[in-house]
Amino acid sequence: MRAVIMHSPGDVHVEDVPDPTIVKPTDAVIRLAASCICGSDLWPYRGVVQPNHQAMGHEYVGVVEEAGADVRTLTPGDFVVGSFMASCGECEICRSGFPSRCARRGRDGINGMQAQYARVPLADGTLVKVPGQPNAAAVRGLLAASDVLGTGWFGAVAAQAGPGKTVAVVGDGAVGLLAVLAARDLGSERVIAMSRHADRQELARYYGATDIVEERGDEGVAAIKDLTDGHGAHSVVEAVGTQESFLQAVHATRPGGHMGFVGLGHEVRIPGLELFNAQIHMLGGPAPVRNYLPDLIDRILAGSMDPGRVFDLTLPLNDAAEGYRAMDERRATKVMLTV
Amino acid sequence: MRAVIMHSPGDVHVEDVPDPTIVKPTDAVIRLAASCICGSDLWPYRGVVQPNHQAMGHEYVGVVEEAGADVRTLTPGDFVVGSFMASCGECEICRSGFPSRCARRGRDGINGMQAQYARVPLADGTLVKVPGQPNAAAVRGLLAASDVLGTGWFGAVAAQAGPGKTVAVVGDGAVGLLAVLAARDLGSERVIAMSRHADRQELARYYGATDIVEERGDEGVAAIKDLTDGHGAHSVVEAVGTQESFLQAVHATRPGGHMGFVGLGHEVRIPGLELFNAQIHMLGGPAPVRNYLPDLIDRILAGSMDPGRVFDLTLPLNDAAEGYRAMDERRATKVMLTV
Repeated sequence: MRAVIMHSPGDVHVEDVPDPTIVKPTDAVIRLAASCICGSDLWPYRGVVQPNHQAMGHEYVGVVEEAGADVRTLTPGDFVVGSFMASCGECEICRSGFPSRCARRGRDGINGMQAQYARVPLADGTLVKVPGQPNAAAVRGLLAASDVLGTGWFGAVAAQAGPGKTVAVVGDGAVGLLAVLAARDLGSERVIAMSRHADRQELARYYGATDIVEERGDEGVAAIKDLTDGHGAHSVVEAVGTQESFLQAVHATRPGGHMGFVGLGHEVRIPGLELFNAQIHMLGGPAPVRNYLPDLIDRILAGSMDPGRVFDLTLPLNDAAEGYRAMDERRATKVMLTV
Repeated sequence: MRAVIMHSPGDVHVEDVPDPTIVKPTDAVIRLAASCICGSDLWPYRGVVQPNHQAMGHEYVGVVEEAGADVRTLTPGDFVVGSFMASCGECEICRSGFPSRCARRGRDGINGMQAQYARVPLADGTLVKVPGQPNAAAVRGLLAASDVLGTGWFGAVAAQAGPGKTVAVVGDGAVGLLAVLAARDLGSERVIAMSRHADRQELARYYGATDIVEERGDEGVAAIKDLTDGHGAHSVVEAVGTQESFLQAVHATRPGGHMGFVGLGHEVRIPGLELFNAQIHMLGGPAPVRNYLPDLIDRILAGSMDPGRVFDLTLPLNDAAEGYRAMDERRATKVMLTV
């Protein structure tokens, strides 16, 4: 089969590799319908971490090709969406709402989704069956649900977005934009998108942003306070992950408010006194997307949300290298690869 | 009147200073019944921050001597307990449960309580009237409620201690010990005190600790995991405030669990990836003690808790210098000053 391999930073090729097979009886093998390139795929591309020479990709929708002997809920032919983190769905941590930290997963991860086929571990707990065979528009939305929408949704849930709340979103990448959508769909009264790019501001407004703040850092915080009687936002989603953006989010949250953070870089060091003096609730980490998939699938199939619009470049799998270049050069916000 | 003044690090004197007066119509002047020396009073004593040459102290119980013209709920003769943070009780932040971050307080703080008399700003929102005139045992408990008990209570509440939960407390100072009491009084199933001092372990057990862990750092975390099926505690209270203790608390909390932190030093820098990968709820800061005072007063007067036992050295105000020495040299856990 064809798969995207990164040999060294910046060196992406689509190559023939062996087809994946069932390794454990809880595995499924899926035939990919679509995949995408993630902001985190740019870390090895830019040499921030070392490429591992495995097939890339962890965002996916596809059709079950083969199910292991212990898989109970899926059969070949089922159209499925999965989280970017494998999860058993049964351990104490999964059941408490944190499948992204499944205690039984061990080293079994999700990868190799920029390919024609892929092995999915813990298939019953990781994949969700979609009713019927979705059309092209639904496929785009479901693909977003697998990571960027699920992650933006978690950011908004972690920030306790909801009725009566003013929510600020730091970051206008795909996750930030979909956090705006999530905040609005969760019923928030006011959603402030922090963005200085006209095209992303437009998409933020399409997704329900009521206000745009272009300033960053202390000026951005001051602008949020001006919009919130001097208190700061009830809820802030941090969707960038730098030192500056993290502290901007901390300072933009009112005392007693909630901050959700969905990405943090290796170099970030948070001054303890900043956390202490802010006195805000914080929750972050890899999104427990699996929690939200059934609800998100319903919303996408019902046509009540359109997360697929974040894909501003769609390429066939064979052109993945151009997709990486476009993301790296910021010519694209989010690249979809059709298989 | 007599008051404790720190002129330079280590240089504490009890001196004659002018009596405090009503400055704003929302002030009260109280006659102190008792005060204490706080761990944070050791920062200027040890030169970590500069002494400000004002009267020391922010933990207190006393009797209203004079109430400003706008004070509605208090009259001279009332026995009162107050938080170590002034609060109006009416602003949006106070009403949301965070009086420790009152939006109307401005620069009006609580200080000068190691004295015979003191001015309390925003008296209606800051002080709580105690029914009648408490006896000596109750005075000790009420004094603890003003800060160390209220702070330990907040730590336990922030960590969502409660029925069915396993709670770990990092730190066996007065606040940590009273967080053990709080976790148990809030109905937690199991309370693990992390302590390596025999006398403090004994007090932790008296306050309801079901387990003691003597190890620190990674070994301490491993011990907590051994006690919790490998997951970590549901709830962790961090009551030390160093880099090591903070990360110990982060790592001892299970994914999706809750960590409350009630003190963080100037030098602490939290690696962002540690927060991201831990995926825990966090809340910390100066405790909103005022929230808890009515409930704590009831419990103390009913005799259902004995927080005053943390005071292991009681001295008259005039011997405050010896109290500072005893705290600094760790001969005392918590010093009470009688006025």
